[in-house]
Amino acid sequence: MIVSPIGYMVHGNYYHKSFKSKNTCLQSANHDIKNSKRSVTMSEIITEYRNENTKNIDLLSTIDIVRKINEEDKLVALAIEDETPNIAQAVDIIAKQFLKGGKLYYFGAGTSGRLGILDASECPPTFGVSPDMVQGIMAGGDKAFRVAVEGAEDNFETGRKDAEILTGNDVCVAISASGNPKYLLGVLSKAEEKGCKTIALTCNHKAAILEEAGHGICVEVGPEVIAGSSRMKAGTAQKMVLNMLTTGAMIKIGKTYENFMIDLMPTNEKLKDRAIRIVS
Amino acid sequence: MIVSPIGYMVHGNYYHKSFKSKNTCLQSANHDIKNSKRSVTMSEIITEYRNENTKNIDLLSTIDIVRKINEEDKLVALAIEDETPNIAQAVDIIAKQFLKGGKLYYFGAGTSGRLGILDASECPPTFGVSPDMVQGIMAGGDKAFRVAVEGAEDNFETGRKDAEILTGNDVCVAISASGNPKYLLGVLSKAEEKGCKTIALTCNHKAAILEEAGHGICVEVGPEVIAGSSRMKAGTAQKMVLNMLTTGAMIKIGKTYENFMIDLMPTNEKLKDRAIRIVS
Repeated sequence: MIVSPIGYMVHGNYYHKSFKSKNTCLQSANHDIKNSKRSVTMSEIITEYRNENTKNIDLLSTIDIVRKINEEDKLVALAIEDETPNIAQAVDIIAKQFLKGGKLYYFGAGTSGRLGILDASECPPTFGVSPDMVQGIMAGGDKAFRVAVEGAEDNFETGRKDAEILTGNDVCVAISASGNPKYLLGVLSKAEEKGCKTIALTCNHKAAILEEAGHGICVEVGPEVIAGSSRMKAGTAQKMVLNMLTTGAMIKIGKTYENFMIDLMPTNEKLKDRAIRIVS
Repeated sequence: MIVSPIGYMVHGNYYHKSFKSKNTCLQSANHDIKNSKRSVTMSEIITEYRNENTKNIDLLSTIDIVRKINEEDKLVALAIEDETPNIAQAVDIIAKQFLKGGKLYYFGAGTSGRLGILDASECPPTFGVSPDMVQGIMAGGDKAFRVAVEGAEDNFETGRKDAEILTGNDVCVAISASGNPKYLLGVLSKAEEKGCKTIALTCNHKAAILEEAGHGICVEVGPEVIAGSSRMKAGTAQKMVLNMLTTGAMIKIGKTYENFMIDLMPTNEKLKDRAIRIVS
């Protein structure tokens, strides 16, 4: 099967998927956080662009709607392929901090925050680690998990407060499709004061969090099927990368033997059966 | 770029990705639920198989670990392509029930339950619908969101109890990678009594929920990078399909104009800016 290197039509112009400037996705450490705050306009945020491939989606048959979404979804893993070097560096940063006794904290608002909690919550049953070792924190607190909390992502000071939990041995991953919530800028400013490692995960190469974090991962999946619906391709990219970060770091610190879980916690019938099969 | 139709090595045998029997993924309605309970052994569950492509993953360099995961992730959207007809049918079922005033309920345990809540929670801000219209329910309740609740997925009676909320106009989607939690079999048995539409979403063609639901979606993504870690490819497949179900159904009932959100709720700065741009 041939998957062509599909590009994006934006404002009538065709952009190949390699159009992004890789430089802006890389780290820009050791700069003055206070002076680097710049305003990012919405016209600079590619996840907000209109996707020319899906312009008439409301007029299509159901099967064609589903096929359109599927065609866009195929681009996600291809976009991640371009970022594997930066993802691998992040895995090494996390594994190193784990070995020092540090923890991994995900911060995000909305879908990004939920994806952080999703990834974190699977680490104890999969790798037999303490629930403290990988934690997801959402703007607006746990109540934001089900229902959006008004303005939660716009609060710089709440971000600073939530990041008080960090220590110098930890890793702080700021997750955002657009990459500009003030909440995360607050988190990163406090994280830098605490001296911990910081990683930005975004889908927009002009993201402010890429400037503020010590290391950056930028998976540019392009405009969404529904303009601005970054729970779709951007959310899938974030989920895939978070799975890579924890699975990769747990492999690096010896939490698997070959491709088996060796410390899984058999908390239900399926897992009990799996544990018996692994050791038999 | 060429993505080859990679297959799976299972117990030393190579399976092309089209190996699955499509018949078993289709609906088997109007049968006697009580008599159809059969025991599914773990050796029949493909998401529990060992992936021969990742056998030595613990010995690889970090970049090669990340690349291996990425290669497997590329298969997910390709596996979904095979199921687009069944997904489209599910979208039509949901849209029809919405137009009758019905609601969409996702049920699941662990990652599957969390993905249901993730998808449901984005519907109000994206489409301007009430939080009641799409709801995610987890085995073990909301406390299971962060921490696994011991044995929650094994309880048939809890499933029946949680499904009491359903009415005849609703759609009940049972989500499970392996497809065999007793909790979901309880949900589906109560759902049938209530007379609502039922859909199974799984990644294993021998899933018991495929037998119990009126309509089935089976995305066979094959063995995971880490054996049994169905939060990975299976979870990504589930996320993609759930996004298709709600996005597709909302488009069908007129909640978009072209590929714009028309009822988005501007609850933060990004969304306020988006709303202004859409109407200007």
